[in-house]
Amino acid sequence: MSSSLGTLFKITTFGESHGGAVGVVVDGVPGGLKICLDAVQHQLNRRKPGQSHLASPRKENDLVECLSGLEGGLSLGSPITLVVRNKDHNPTHYEDVNKVYRPSHADFTYQKKYGIRASSGGGRASARETIGRVAAGSIAEQVIKHFAPDYSCLSFVDKVKDIEVSTRDFPHLSRELIDETALRCPDKNVRDQMESLITNAQKNGDSVGGSIHCIAKGCPQGLGEPIFDKLQADLAKALMSLPATRFFEIGLGEKATEMYGSEHNDAFISHGGETVVKTNRSGGIQGGISNGAPILLRVGFKPVATIFKHQNTTSVDGKNVTFKPKHGRHDPCVLPRAVPMVEAMVNIVLCDHLMRQRSQDGS
Amino acid sequence: MSSSLGTLFKITTFGESHGGAVGVVVDGVPGGLKICLDAVQHQLNRRKPGQSHLASPRKENDLVECLSGLEGGLSLGSPITLVVRNKDHNPTHYEDVNKVYRPSHADFTYQKKYGIRASSGGGRASARETIGRVAAGSIAEQVIKHFAPDYSCLSFVDKVKDIEVSTRDFPHLSRELIDETALRCPDKNVRDQMESLITNAQKNGDSVGGSIHCIAKGCPQGLGEPIFDKLQADLAKALMSLPATRFFEIGLGEKATEMYGSEHNDAFISHGGETVVKTNRSGGIQGGISNGAPILLRVGFKPVATIFKHQNTTSVDGKNVTFKPKHGRHDPCVLPRAVPMVEAMVNIVLCDHLMRQRSQDGS
Amino acid sequence: MSSSLGTLFKITTFGESHGGAVGVVVDGVPGGLKICLDAVQHQLNRRKPGQSHLASPRKENDLVECLSGLEGGLSLGSPITLVVRNKDHNPTHYEDVNKVYRPSHADFTYQKKYGIRASSGGGRASARETIGRVAAGSIAEQVIKHFAPDYSCLSFVDKVKDIEVSTRDFPHLSRELIDETALRCPDKNVRDQMESLITNAQKNGDSVGGSIHCIAKGCPQGLGEPIFDKLQADLAKALMSLPATRFFEIGLGEKATEMYGSEHNDAFISHGGETVVKTNRSGGIQGGISNGAPILLRVGFKPVATIFKHQNTTSVDGKNVTFKPKHGRHDPCVLPRAVPMVEAMVNIVLCDHLMRQRSQDGS
Amino acid sequence: MSSSLGTLFKITTFGESHGGAVGVVVDGVPGGLKICLDAVQHQLNRRKPGQSHLASPRKENDLVECLSGLEGGLSLGSPITLVVRNKDHNPTHYEDVNKVYRPSHADFTYQKKYGIRASSGGGRASARETIGRVAAGSIAEQVIKHFAPDYSCLSFVDKVKDIEVSTRDFPHLSRELIDETALRCPDKNVRDQMESLITNAQKNGDSVGGSIHCIAKGCPQGLGEPIFDKLQADLAKALMSLPATRFFEIGLGEKATEMYGSEHNDAFISHGGETVVKTNRSGGIQGGISNGAPILLRVGFKPVATIFKHQNTTSVDGKNVTFKPKHGRHDPCVLPRAVPMVEAMVNIVLCDHLMRQRSQDGS
Repeated sequence: MSSSLGTLFKITTFGESHGGAVGVVVDGVPGGLKICLDAVQHQLNRRKPGQSHLASPRKENDLVECLSGLEGGLSLGSPITLVVRNKDHNPTHYEDVNKVYRPSHADFTYQKKYGIRASSGGGRASARETIGRVAAGSIAEQVIKHFAPDYSCLSFVDKVKDIEVSTRDFPHLSRELIDETALRCPDKNVRDQMESLITNAQKNGDSVGGSIHCIAKGCPQGLGEPIFDKLQADLAKALMSLPATRFFEIGLGEKATEMYGSEHNDAFISHGGETVVKTNRSGGIQGGISNGAPILLRVGFKPVATIFKHQNTTSVDGKNVTFKPKHGRHDPCVLPRAVPMVEAMVNIVLCDHLMRQRSQDGS
Repeated sequence: MSSSLGTLFKITTFGESHGGAVGVVVDGVPGGLKICLDAVQHQLNRRKPGQSHLASPRKENDLVECLSGLEGGLSLGSPITLVVRNKDHNPTHYEDVNKVYRPSHADFTYQKKYGIRASSGGGRASARETIGRVAAGSIAEQVIKHFAPDYSCLSFVDKVKDIEVSTRDFPHLSRELIDETALRCPDKNVRDQMESLITNAQKNGDSVGGSIHCIAKGCPQGLGEPIFDKLQADLAKALMSLPATRFFEIGLGEKATEMYGSEHNDAFISHGGETVVKTNRSGGIQGGISNGAPILLRVGFKPVATIFKHQNTTSVDGKNVTFKPKHGRHDPCVLPRAVPMVEAMVNIVLCDHLMRQRSQDGS
Repeated sequence: MSSSLGTLFKITTFGESHGGAVGVVVDGVPGGLKICLDAVQHQLNRRKPGQSHLASPRKENDLVECLSGLEGGLSLGSPITLVVRNKDHNPTHYEDVNKVYRPSHADFTYQKKYGIRASSGGGRASARETIGRVAAGSIAEQVIKHFAPDYSCLSFVDKVKDIEVSTRDFPHLSRELIDETALRCPDKNVRDQMESLITNAQKNGDSVGGSIHCIAKGCPQGLGEPIFDKLQADLAKALMSLPATRFFEIGLGEKATEMYGSEHNDAFISHGGETVVKTNRSGGIQGGISNGAPILLRVGFKPVATIFKHQNTTSVDGKNVTFKPKHGRHDPCVLPRAVPMVEAMVNIVLCDHLMRQRSQDGS
Repeated sequence: MSSSLGTLFKITTFGESHGGAVGVVVDGVPGGLKICLDAVQHQLNRRKPGQSHLASPRKENDLVECLSGLEGGLSLGSPITLVVRNKDHNPTHYEDVNKVYRPSHADFTYQKKYGIRASSGGGRASARETIGRVAAGSIAEQVIKHFAPDYSCLSFVDKVKDIEVSTRDFPHLSRELIDETALRCPDKNVRDQMESLITNAQKNGDSVGGSIHCIAKGCPQGLGEPIFDKLQADLAKALMSLPATRFFEIGLGEKATEMYGSEHNDAFISHGGETVVKTNRSGGIQGGISNGAPILLRVGFKPVATIFKHQNTTSVDGKNVTFKPKHGRHDPCVLPRAVPMVEAMVNIVLCDHLMRQRSQDGS
């Protein structure tokens, strides 16, 4: 199992959904930086279940404990270990689940790969694994801001099933604005409609997917390592490593592929002596390297695999059976809780590349 | 510059477009396997310029030379080094280019990152860099087939600008069928239309983008390493590391995100004692691990940045200028030549994960 | 800080000596293997302080807690996280230490590198960091034994200062025999003499070093990856990454370099149809690859830097001062407690290479 | 086969001794640095066979060709590929060798690991593989000097069999002084004696080993990454990855382990406002991090395995046979040619750690 990510800013997550704890070791934070655990907790709170009627009712406070790496609020240069204890897990709720392979879950492939799987909950395949990522992402964001104070990374729900936002360009966008409603979509024109869609699906025992848009502003120029570690490549990997993801777009994404070169190219202009792009169709990255414009990306999530309907599947002993979960606390739509996950992965990748670029230019 | 990819099957590419040579070192091939250099050359031929009216007229035979790792047609277990000499490069054709930052090219970001850039052609940002990938991809394919004889990996153009194939499910699909026309699209209903679109764009000095669909059949179960090296995550990285890519989709991609869970879930059925998926909306991967069904993915390419029109940009000394390339041999659309590149990256990722999985189950 | 080691069997340690906890994440253990935590605890007990009059009196039970990766005594294939809480740390004992750079300690270099250092104890430079290694080493040993049941790894003290064992070839060597005395030297001829040397040094407020010999029997053939990851190279790195190490020898070590080729070469003989070495001067490794004979190595430790004598040094504000520690619980000689550390590092390297080799030959 | 080394400054070597070519890809050199290929050639000349009566008479000019990464003498930031063609290889000379496992060679273990081995010469196990290392080492040295102009790295033979230099502290040491005689030992008191020993062994068809001392001065403070990538650990790995190495020592090595703490500790003193060590028994590294004092290390080589005497061994079909090589051009002692290899590995490790440290402190 590959539980580590990064070259210089390196994270290692651990923990099953129904084991003792989940957490992360964050290695590569330079020494002497102010690291605020409240900021970490804030992002964990945005991720945790039970926040609203749109999310799983599992009751977890998800309080983070720091086991190492910080002293007096400052980083020591050593690995920062953050742990969240699992509290509200009820293995008996999963007894039915252990006898079948749930459709479009990881049960079957984990069993094939490891010859064993966690006896309750999704084990490492559970979204609970993302706690370590979100915690590490907040550390990453704080490290980046130390070197690039104008940096910000904001994500929001831009599509639920086939309902899409009317714009992705919101003035005065902030986490507060995004969090105004439980859905985490800042578009007042469509968010009620999106929310109805989700609650209706939930009533029907069904689930829906959608996508998230992310904007990282103030990212330094020069981040990204051609050839294989192009910035968009490492972002694609990081985001497609989130559970349930189906697509990744950089810049205009699929829309870009439908344009003529003359429509898509970003002209350069001289702005106060500096060369900058006049438009940002490339989404802040050219040749795999950040150009200083906002990094724009989208990532899509499939509908949640757990639905409360009868489905055909096989039992672990190879028989055709019908399955409908008896219990289980599942989100009808992962999007609102995935917002901080997307921010986390973007922060983690950019922080690693920032550290790598510093070795080149010492900036 | 990160010129290496892979954990156990590891490739390192090198070479500028107008330097002495381009090539690749392929490390991690087990000893004693039959490796056919003709198969490597065949994929390089599908990639090389000057194949048709749809591609750059640069004249390169791209003949591969093997410097190490093979003896009597067998792998020694040591790194296989494959080199292609650059022949038809004409630095004087690029004199105008060196004075400006070409819009939506890597000129500006390379200059910012490295403080220098290759004085002619795109250097490492040129599509010529993909020669090493395509050569390595053929080696990877041969290694996989040694362990999984039914394996095949086929890609074709599935969209040019906004013209899309009517189906992605072609019976009897083969490289021969795909190569029937220069466009590498097997859909007779749309390929003439696609081709006209490209040649018209070319006449106007413009360029177009589009996308490629890839189908990898016969891939063993159990490949992919949750958490961060999920199979779709490593595929996303590998494919988004190709020049000019804009999006990556696994399975049904964005379409999946527009479905209800009850529509998207793949039911399991017992088939001859084996559990298999009845449908394959997940594209052969669940929980980041291959389930034995065909791996389905799409990757999109933006329109080529080089167009023969006047564009606004800045000179390297920071002045606003107008730029139109005097010379240069560029594809109006990269898609036909990108087909073997996509196959290469998929082969490389699957081969690495196959080697990794063998360490788990010794299969 | 590079807190991770390994390619497929990968460990990540964390924790300061006087922080909340120390521990390790062990990733890459195949699924479904029996893992015994008592065996882990046993090795931790051999490492812990306060075992005897030869070791630091710091009182730590060093009880291991497992946070993830195991269920019902079986590995899940997911990262195994092992944590030991720090109990007996008294920061006031280190107040004097924070104002000076202790000679031959890591205080000065940590300060230069990180611009900060843990305010009490050695932080990550403390031998307490090795808890994670020893715990991971026991997991590694258990994994190896699953695939190579005859495997064993035994270390003992073979030299204290200039007193050396009369032989390194003890019949019926076992951990029990080695642990017969607190010194962990099985040679009855010299161990009393060695012990007197240590206790005399301690009385004088001084410290001594020495070396440890390790024998790994039953290691499969074929482990080790030329060129850079030769088995002896990875062993050298792993062992020289232990605190206070000064030399590493493989096979006959320096003695080998003093022989003629005709004296040193290991003849092959056919033994029951198998080619084996008649002698084992090479220490079980040829060309960087294990040949099936016992792996023999030595590693040397300098005298402990903390001594209870007046020493010249500088204060953190750059003045020349005299320093003698007021408090602190330090070993006069690290060797007895280093025995399980050496075993751990050897197990970790061999386990990683075993997993790597399995990808080659599927054994 | 693990043919790559390094985290940010990463080298990948390739090539069999009797294949088409040997070489190296050097990735991670920052852009815009002056790189002198003559300096590379100079180190290759010091490594090449046929230099003197002490070395193998194989006739290779070992002229280096650069395939990529440089333009106008400046690094482009892209991988620098250096290739040396094999010229003087005579496969018929090895026909006898292919039928037996040569004692203490890599023939047997390569066969066991890969199921195949190069049919003539040692393949990758040949010392010819070190050409790529020596070339990369010269690039590394030039990169370090760009950031630390006072840096120098000098190695010399300090022991041949049991004849040791009278001192390791030579005033005005330089490569010229070391190269004064073919032996590369600057000690006039012992070098004639050493040379006689080697030529006598050669007359008897025998071989001898010995050791090399290396001094790296002017290395910046702060290099080295505790925990696992301590500077001495990465140096140990790099040096023990050279063919035929038997031991590695840092600082005073085994002598350090025979001292009391009060004898070994390096006092700090304030020198012009800077804290420096008064003595350098630690060899420039404390806590795994460079302290600014010269880095001192030793590495030992076993006697060459190829000797011109009858030896017992087995044939590849498992029979006991007697073997004496008919042909073959082998050094009676590798030490003189190993001098630039040792320098190369030290340069490579320090350059990688310099790049890593720059990401921490931007220096």
